Amino acid sequence: MSGEIQKILRKADGVCFDVDSTVIQEEGIDELAKFCNKGTEVANLTAKAMTGSMTFQESLKLRLNIIQPTLNQIRDFVKTSPPTLTPGIKKLTNLLHSRNVPVYLISGGFRCIITPIATQLNIPHENVFGNRLKFYYTGEYAGFDENEPTSKSGGKAVVINLLKDRHNYENVVLIGDGATDLEAAPPADAFIGYGGNVIRPTVQAKAKWFVTDFNEIIEALNQ
Amino acid sequence: MSGEIQKILRKADGVCFDVDSTVIQEEGIDELAKFCNKGTEVANLTAKAMTGSMTFQESLKLRLNIIQPTLNQIRDFVKTSPPTLTPGIKKLTNLLHSRNVPVYLISGGFRCIITPIATQLNIPHENVFGNRLKFYYTGEYAGFDENEPTSKSGGKAVVINLLKDRHNYENVVLIGDGATDLEAAPPADAFIGYGGNVIRPTVQAKAKWFVTDFNEIIEALNQ
Ligand SMILES: [Mg+2]
Ligand SMILES: [Mg+2]
Repeated sequence: MSGEIQKILRKADGVCFDVDSTVIQEEGIDELAKFCNKGTEVANLTAKAMTGSMTFQESLKLRLNIIQPTLNQIRDFVKTSPPTLTPGIKKLTNLLHSRNVPVYLISGGFRCIITPIATQLNIPHENVFGNRLKFYYTGEYAGFDENEPTSKSGGKAVVINLLKDRHNYENVVLIGDGATDLEAAPPADAFIGYGGNVIRPTVQAKAKWFVTDFNEIIEALNQ
Repeated sequence: MSGEIQKILRKADGVCFDVDSTVIQEEGIDELAKFCNKGTEVANLTAKAMTGSMTFQESLKLRLNIIQPTLNQIRDFVKTSPPTLTPGIKKLTNLLHSRNVPVYLISGGFRCIITPIATQLNIPHENVFGNRLKFYYTGEYAGFDENEPTSKSGGKAVVINLLKDRHNYENVVLIGDGATDLEAAPPADAFIGYGGNVIRPTVQAKAKWFVTDFNEIIEALNQ
């Protein structure tokens, strides 16, 4: 089963990565919540959201309404709490770039937190898809762009369809740890489950190829 | 007719001022549009909006979508293009404050532009009602708070009702140049039309008391 996925990987037109617990070791929103002293409240809500039938956008809205991050808090957070790149990610994205395979980041997290990661990985900022926080002139939290596909359930699939339409891609690979990643294939032509930071049992069970080390993907590309 | 209004003025629990073309000589949004090199486009749209049946919120949205003011542009605008206080306004608000009559600013313009005016007039910022612009982390324009009453047709009346409810005011005076001001009385208990910057014929015709100089109001208060 993984052979089929590896074949698509080797001829990929584009490779998309989830960010939280995939490209980086943390969950951005949880780290931001802790930074703003709302870690426990947000963790409780996340646990509750998982048991219910809340949409992604509802749970995002509720969590942000708890955190209410100001512009200054985000600036301080980005400056003082840079996320930890997962081992092997830079080697993998460098390899893809050296073969002229474009790399995309598709995240339910926040663009302001993700763009510095994209910079570190030489990923152009227009290849970053994520949510956009809004602020008032005074810097107070003012919501998020609710029209952004990544703010909605099924949003990653929308972004992948958009990339396929825009660039006529026929082989798009998606790599991620979560259920929302798994659900985006199809339209992604191949999905690689990543369990190097956290293992999600459903993803491990359903992914045709599941890895816990990016070097496995690098090896497959070099075959 | 003006005697009746003057009587209410002398026992006012609170005095509310419109801002554009009343407290200041300019129309804030037109000045901002010019500053962002969108003056003509916005003026054309304003003219068109006046002939049609557009709601205030629709016309506000369209004008802001033309201007798309960034956070930096607003900062520069506030710094380099302070509005001109209308002659006599400071003397009038000082007189009201000296008599412990609270002064409010109620505007369809933007709070970030109005709060420096409030500061100049010693009006507490919580007495400012106006629209709130939103920005993305990058500083790009991200819309405005569409739940703010002042962003909607009839919004000034909503604010005045709110003040009356909150403070049990029985005599609220509203002073302004425009049709949206006139329409807010009632609930305002008295309306004074102000024509020192621009004369709006409907307002001049319908206002029970119409002045072109704030000194006329000061004199009435001193009688
Ligand atoms: Mg993830
Ligand atoms: Mg006015």
